Amino acid sequence: MFLKNAWYVACRPEEIEGKPLGRQICGLKMVIYRGPENQAVALEDFCPHRGAPLSLGFVKDGNLVCGYHGLEMGCHGKTVAMPSQRVSAFPSIASYPVIERYGFIWVWPGDREKADPALMPVYEFFDNPAWAYGGGMYHVKANYQLMIDNLMDLSHETYVHSTSIGQPEIDETPCKTEVKGNKVFTSRFMENIKAPPFWRMAMRANGLDDNALVDRWQICQFTPPSHVMIDVGVALAGKGGFDAPDEDKVYSVVVDFITPETETSHWYFWGMARKFKTNDSALTYSIREGQGKIFAEDMDMLERQQSNILLHSGRRLLKLNIDAGGVNSRMVLDRLLAEENQA
Amino acid sequence: MFLKNAWYVACRPEEIEGKPLGRQICGLKMVIYRGPENQAVALEDFCPHRGAPLSLGFVKDGNLVCGYHGLEMGCHGKTVAMPSQRVSAFPSIASYPVIERYGFIWVWPGDREKADPALMPVYEFFDNPAWAYGGGMYHVKANYQLMIDNLMDLSHETYVHSTSIGQPEIDETPCKTEVKGNKVFTSRFMENIKAPPFWRMAMRANGLDDNALVDRWQICQFTPPSHVMIDVGVALAGKGGFDAPDEDKVYSVVVDFITPETETSHWYFWGMARKFKTNDSALTYSIREGQGKIFAEDMDMLERQQSNILLHSGRRLLKLNIDAGGVNSRMVLDRLLAEENQA
Amino acid sequence: MFLKNAWYVACRPEEIEGKPLGRQICGLKMVIYRGPENQAVALEDFCPHRGAPLSLGFVKDGNLVCGYHGLEMGCHGKTVAMPSQRVSAFPSIASYPVIERYGFIWVWPGDREKADPALMPVYEFFDNPAWAYGGGMYHVKANYQLMIDNLMDLSHETYVHSTSIGQPEIDETPCKTEVKGNKVFTSRFMENIKAPPFWRMAMRANGLDDNALVDRWQICQFTPPSHVMIDVGVALAGKGGFDAPDEDKVYSVVVDFITPETETSHWYFWGMARKFKTNDSALTYSIREGQGKIFAEDMDMLERQQSNILLHSGRRLLKLNIDAGGVNSRMVLDRLLAEENQA
Repeated sequence: MFLKNAWYVACRPEEIEGKPLGRQICGLKMVIYRGPENQAVALEDFCPHRGAPLSLGFVKDGNLVCGYHGLEMGCHGKTVAMPSQRVSAFPSIASYPVIERYGFIWVWPGDREKADPALMPVYEFFDNPAWAYGGGMYHVKANYQLMIDNLMDLSHETYVHSTSIGQPEIDETPCKTEVKGNKVFTSRFMENIKAPPFWRMAMRANGLDDNALVDRWQICQFTPPSHVMIDVGVALAGKGGFDAPDEDKVYSVVVDFITPETETSHWYFWGMARKFKTNDSALTYSIREGQGKIFAEDMDMLERQQSNILLHSGRRLLKLNIDAGGVNSRMVLDRLLAEENQA
Repeated sequence: MFLKNAWYVACRPEEIEGKPLGRQICGLKMVIYRGPENQAVALEDFCPHRGAPLSLGFVKDGNLVCGYHGLEMGCHGKTVAMPSQRVSAFPSIASYPVIERYGFIWVWPGDREKADPALMPVYEFFDNPAWAYGGGMYHVKANYQLMIDNLMDLSHETYVHSTSIGQPEIDETPCKTEVKGNKVFTSRFMENIKAPPFWRMAMRANGLDDNALVDRWQICQFTPPSHVMIDVGVALAGKGGFDAPDEDKVYSVVVDFITPETETSHWYFWGMARKFKTNDSALTYSIREGQGKIFAEDMDMLERQQSNILLHSGRRLLKLNIDAGGVNSRMVLDRLLAEENQA
Repeated sequence: MFLKNAWYVACRPEEIEGKPLGRQICGLKMVIYRGPENQAVALEDFCPHRGAPLSLGFVKDGNLVCGYHGLEMGCHGKTVAMPSQRVSAFPSIASYPVIERYGFIWVWPGDREKADPALMPVYEFFDNPAWAYGGGMYHVKANYQLMIDNLMDLSHETYVHSTSIGQPEIDETPCKTEVKGNKVFTSRFMENIKAPPFWRMAMRANGLDDNALVDRWQICQFTPPSHVMIDVGVALAGKGGFDAPDEDKVYSVVVDFITPETETSHWYFWGMARKFKTNDSALTYSIREGQGKIFAEDMDMLERQQSNILLHSGRRLLKLNIDAGGVNSRMVLDRLLAEENQA
């Protein structure tokens, strides 16, 4: 079961360049393409004529032409033409509200009348010259909530990512979880420690002594339906940590947009927005490469966790303090789902 | 559900050369091989001893020897021998009537006593020096009726085969559908048009000016259970079209034998019989290559249509005038199925 | 349904060298690793924290560390530590008795209190300088009882292994089956025959004239839950057969340990213990290669038999005299299963 009345990242713009894209989102098979005036459109991926996937077709004059018999579908899900046919009585297909923002195509799989652009999350780091951004996408064969659990409990870094961002101090430092409205925050502050390899690289890139002791922070923020932003960084020890002046710290935001596909799979749009060396595109490239490798480690773990849980269904899992971020995110989602289904 | 009392193409002779073939037809797992006097035989693919597939065995003196423990099966489904065993009380397995004709092995999956060679369809173009024939076979992961729909509505050529046999005039010209007994005909006649690439090649091959305007025809004929013959050709414009003298036209028959495997898959035996340049085996080869590519485009579309329909089960499809060929073929099949199941 | 209170071969020692192994045995997902004092340990492959497979982790100081969040599992299934956590109340996971013997790791998937090392089968040929041993492992997608059937009826050799150990005399010679307690014996003695290729090679290797007529024997012995030992060999004709002096015969034991994975798959540990040329490791290697090829022929047949039987479920199979070994083994297993489930 998925929260339907919400904005999800459907795809990146390059995925609909020149041809329609078929993608399943929250269990719904959609076709996404550029329609009239080049606006992104999302429709049910089902031709009302004979059931062919419209995503096998092509766009002509802003309409989506079915690749089987040439039915022309308009951007609102109404057939607009078909060779030698009167189409006014053809049944409609579902259309989904779409917004293009922050370098992504977003879709609202629920009630059209409730779709409000003002409900889109707001991020300062996209389209902002003070920040640089790089990212990628993975298809993960695991329920999307396992990914939220993963991102809201970074103690796994010590084990899953031991060679890059993990370090024992993460385990040893308690985290704190707070729920504020529909948001969940889990934060951890480590003081007077050595920086792990990734952050030493970032310190060097930013002109800081990578052997210096640092204060390190991780602030995970869950926003429904499935966005997790993580403030991460290190500052020279004693300079104020997260609040230290820019010249004494390196700082970035791990960006995670998680889009359910089925009950046991999701699309994972990951990236990193950083505030240092923003004009260095080689650095953007190498961070994305490194992050891609790290997140592939998570993907492997999650897929095997998912299949193990399916084989042991009904078995209770532990809810430790380190799990509080994921557990509270699930509680928020459960409450919102109950509200949505009641309405 | 399949019509069982009918002749289906089971395989091509080369598929049973030197070894038995295991093939599922109308949901029934069969083994097909050359038995006594080299006659083709079809039996249940199940050894009554321990359930091994007999198709893993070999033929000895006209009997099918199980490759596991050497049980020797006769061509009527009765065990004839087994080392050190008395076999007279062994349970029989089903045997299916077989006819070898037109370069194919045909099988009757239903009641043996109703199997009548006179019910075989009659074709003038096989084994006839006035005609040349070439063809191939595909395994298609879609219900066989989707293939009948496809072949009885050639308006898809404009979209699925836009670079070879498609042209806008197909869409623009209405087709006419007639039911005559158990047969369904859908025909379309286009006048004074340019020939598409495939037919220009054929005109050149036959010594006609390929720039000349032509009259083009498509006459699709469905015969139960699942044979579709399509008269196709072009004649120099104004010479009588389909009825023009041989020297003014190029003409062939698209041959489609469709054999259900399961509810969501079938074996597709396709080919083309032509009346021009019949001695040109290089032309036969190149036409088969071209047709193979064209029909692979259909296969891709049908498999994705099938999986899309499964995901949207219960959803009503449109029945337009262009669909009348397929719709009427389904009605004929439904009526014959009801009769068969009543009997 | 599997007999649980029994010793099964879980794996070979090299499979747990340096890292844990995940393996499903009798339907139970286990992790097998070297724990305290390098002793082999088998636990449920399920981390009680968040359900990750423990087999993705690593061993530290004899404990199994989960690769996700660092939970440390002890060899009795009790969590012994986790960074920053009190673990005493964590739920346990199942642990399974393990014995390392005969070059294998054995596991008891049933009640721990009934696990008795004295119930281990006893073999004279392992760890005995008078014998040489070589073997391998296959994963077979068929119910384990189909493998027992196969090994208790060697008449299949004539067909499945016609180029190596099969010969018509096997078929022509009746076998005799006896049940002694929980053991089942099927034996066949062939006299005054030519030796087949494998045994001619063995005769040459042992300094015997490979053109001489021989007496050949096959004595299959089933021991629950699923061990099949087969005495096989040839002696110069008239020298006493199985009881002939060592210098007049070549003799070995085919070793088969069969471990159910699921209802339709098993792990097959096969090998051969021989009493001739025991110091010739090149011969051990070449026998293992040959046996591997022969047993791959069985594997192919069994997998296709299994899928054929699934497609024809409910269909009765024959129980001939040659099947008496397998049929009686199944009766012993059924009786033991009934006893186990009653208790």
